[in-house]
Amino acid sequence: MRPLTTADLNPAILKVQYAVRGELAIKAEELREKLQSESHGLPFKKVISSNIGNPQQKGLDQPFLTFTRQVAALMEYPPLAEIVKDKWPQDVLDRAKELQEDIGSIGAYSHSKGVPLIRKHVAKFIEERDGYPSDPEDIFLTAGASAGVSLILNVLITPNQTGILIPIPQYPLYTATLAQFSGVALPYHLSESEGWSTSLEEIKAALAKAKQDSVMPRAIVVINPGNPTGAILDKTTMCNLVRLCEEHSLVLLADEVYQANLHRPDTHPFHSFKQVVRELNSPIPLFSFHSISKGVKGECGRRGGYFECTNISDEVRALLYKMASVTLCPPLSGQIGVDCLVRPPRPNEPSYALWKKETDTIHEALRHRTQLMAQRLNSLPGVSCVDSPGALYLYPKLELPDKAVEEAQKLGKSPDTLYALQLLEETGICVVPGSGFGQKDGEHHYRLTCLCPGVEEYVSALENFHLKFLKKYGGL
Amino acid sequence: MRPLTTADLNPAILKVQYAVRGELAIKAEELREKLQSESHGLPFKKVISSNIGNPQQKGLDQPFLTFTRQVAALMEYPPLAEIVKDKWPQDVLDRAKELQEDIGSIGAYSHSKGVPLIRKHVAKFIEERDGYPSDPEDIFLTAGASAGVSLILNVLITPNQTGILIPIPQYPLYTATLAQFSGVALPYHLSESEGWSTSLEEIKAALAKAKQDSVMPRAIVVINPGNPTGAILDKTTMCNLVRLCEEHSLVLLADEVYQANLHRPDTHPFHSFKQVVRELNSPIPLFSFHSISKGVKGECGRRGGYFECTNISDEVRALLYKMASVTLCPPLSGQIGVDCLVRPPRPNEPSYALWKKETDTIHEALRHRTQLMAQRLNSLPGVSCVDSPGALYLYPKLELPDKAVEEAQKLGKSPDTLYALQLLEETGICVVPGSGFGQKDGEHHYRLTCLCPGVEEYVSALENFHLKFLKKYGGL
Ligand SMILES: Cc1ncc(COP(=O)(O)O)c(C=O)c1O
Ligand SMILES: Cc1ncc(COP(=O)(O)O)c(C=O)c1O
Repeated sequence: MRPLTTADLNPAILKVQYAVRGELAIKAEELREKLQSESHGLPFKKVISSNIGNPQQKGLDQPFLTFTRQVAALMEYPPLAEIVKDKWPQDVLDRAKELQEDIGSIGAYSHSKGVPLIRKHVAKFIEERDGYPSDPEDIFLTAGASAGVSLILNVLITPNQTGILIPIPQYPLYTATLAQFSGVALPYHLSESEGWSTSLEEIKAALAKAKQDSVMPRAIVVINPGNPTGAILDKTTMCNLVRLCEEHSLVLLADEVYQANLHRPDTHPFHSFKQVVRELNSPIPLFSFHSISKGVKGECGRRGGYFECTNISDEVRALLYKMASVTLCPPLSGQIGVDCLVRPPRPNEPSYALWKKETDTIHEALRHRTQLMAQRLNSLPGVSCVDSPGALYLYPKLELPDKAVEEAQKLGKSPDTLYALQLLEETGICVVPGSGFGQKDGEHHYRLTCLCPGVEEYVSALENFHLKFLKKYGGL
Repeated sequence: MRPLTTADLNPAILKVQYAVRGELAIKAEELREKLQSESHGLPFKKVISSNIGNPQQKGLDQPFLTFTRQVAALMEYPPLAEIVKDKWPQDVLDRAKELQEDIGSIGAYSHSKGVPLIRKHVAKFIEERDGYPSDPEDIFLTAGASAGVSLILNVLITPNQTGILIPIPQYPLYTATLAQFSGVALPYHLSESEGWSTSLEEIKAALAKAKQDSVMPRAIVVINPGNPTGAILDKTTMCNLVRLCEEHSLVLLADEVYQANLHRPDTHPFHSFKQVVRELNSPIPLFSFHSISKGVKGECGRRGGYFECTNISDEVRALLYKMASVTLCPPLSGQIGVDCLVRPPRPNEPSYALWKKETDTIHEALRHRTQLMAQRLNSLPGVSCVDSPGALYLYPKLELPDKAVEEAQKLGKSPDTLYALQLLEETGICVVPGSGFGQKDGEHHYRLTCLCPGVEEYVSALENFHLKFLKKYGGL
């Protein structure tokens, strides 16, 4: 009997990289473990996971929305309605009753595309958002946006032949899933100096390169609002992107999971690609992804989300349904979460006031923290940082002293990994090095989330560390 | 702009088949829709979904276990504890509190392998079941067993090279996932005349054929108790299988999701492969799958399960962790479900009496229905049926009249599909034709679940239809 080694395994899997939960996150776990012992000797009291957009995790503790959770509790245990009927708002009770009568038990597999009634509600939400019709048959509920992205890429990619345009920097789900399914990544760089804007020229250059390399470009990924950049596309750029897809017969994958995370909606509003495609009356195939993990809900652990198909034939949709059915159905707790996302309490309903207060508070906290952190980071020597108008992140750029770069090279690490590791070891703050998202050669970044509650103390720790780091390597 | 057609897509995806939710299931949905109208003209009042092991679905209505759902409701909305503290059993409140203090909010992504505390509980459950140690680090919680199987096959299969031995008949997750990842299916037939037993000779023949075809066999799938067969492996066969894996350096994939569905445990007990591997002190790499969807819990909609790695190196485990992290984490509602599966109430606890009554009732109903249905089907002309000692299904064999076979050929359908379609149209009972699970050439089967509550009426409908069908095609 030979033991199983990685050499026996699918070589595509060996190439997959996912930095959000990579070296830094594993190290952070070790430190968290170490902090349990009295004599840990570490220079901080807690580890702060700024490596992942996970608002409700321990230590960040963004509160859940009461409405969602009360509905969910009733779905879990319907006899509870009797007990809470005079204690919980009537719209909560009504919502749970309506869903239950339609769905039956949440312990049953649902339709593989998700509960038909909830898909109807999603379609209605999209119609109200965009002002264009949406067909529930075009909606697939998923176990988070991740599962939807994985399904679509798996279906679009013929191994070792299909090229997919991805932004750099990007959320590493995309490079990881491309590696998994042996797709060819066709990177296009976002323009940091213009607030991480998307440049058509960069995309055209990537297409030209694909042609040279005999790679067949099939699709383009756009993340809007961006992760890790927080950038928001303006409508003109969106129109140009759609036209470019028409010209090159590209499928558009629109990752819109941060559509509700807008810090300056007056100057930086969100438009969906579905709306733009309809406005232009464009025939491009479009898959649009949304999630309950982000926004102000932050219900990451439920694993809920959906994608909408636009300009996708019945034949292709049937194939997607077949693939969805192999894993049976998305989790019902996620599906209930989607229903609450797309049908929040309305102003005349008893849950509204509380819901409004809760969501306003979270929006305001995110806005405040993002702005404060961007401002303070920008005042540091050797740091520049686009003040994100959206999403949950900042992606500061670092000018690192030569000595730090040399030391990193000696250790066989990227310089931003060296920086992030030392930041973690000295402050307990866990961020992700820019190499995990992609950047131009010779550049250094890191991504941090804007989710930490004690933002003043947090930023001070970042500042102190940075100055110490520069000093250590002769950069001050 | 060319529209997107199936010809543009990954050709592997086009080959995927998944009959459990295929033609019959889609037809059943249409009929269910049609029944809504007053003048439907159909000869039945409701559609009964016997195509899928989904105990809690509408119409089957297997009740949930109170303990699980009360814990889940408290996890959804922790302030509920105040409201129900004098109404719900203390062990329910304690369990929820313990989980919550450890996990924090179930709205947060957990560790990608699942909550560490729950993995500890799984390991303890396995230790008590098998009498051998289990390491929480070897446990991966998953979104149902399906997600685990998919992950392992994706990692094991090098496209177009790797052969995987699968039983025929099999649960179509396996053929579907093999097609998706371009694995080469190496079928081995189970022996119907010996109660669907597993024959080493059949496996050796499949291995010899693989050698001829220059396919590299990497792993063998064993489903125990079987789906669709309900067969349970005896220990001697299990030992022989492990020895065969040693000899041929095969990874063993043990699908044990029906381990708690035992209708005659005295004569047909369940042994885990983990136990056998440890007893034999065997070095074979083993992945064992379990789920909360089956047993008496039937919590399909939560999407919970786990797999255990045995004799898997740290290096390979790290790679599995990396892949698990790309989709972030399994749904927390499924993870909570796993905790309740592996830590049910104990005899001295306040929830125990009710839990015992609920689980006994479900076990008894499954046992009774399976036996009654097998007996009645076996009395029909042209039907023979192994009386399953386990799982949730029967897989009767049909001798169909020549005329029926000819008509099916004319329609371009398999004869058992013709049979199943007419059964659905005349009785509303939806089953899956044997062609969806695999059978020998020229044989005809169908699979039905033993989940219908009004079993007498249900069996009568099956009987009446069968006799009518035989008459129609000159077989009586
Ligand atoms: C851009 C982007 N897309 C998709 C996801 C996936 O989120 P989920 O699978 O939880 O919906 C994330 C998560 O961080 C993300 O940042
Ligand atoms: C043999 C077998 N394995 C795995 C599964 C997957 O179940 P789940 O993904 O719900 O855990 C099933 C479901 O019917 C099954 O029958």
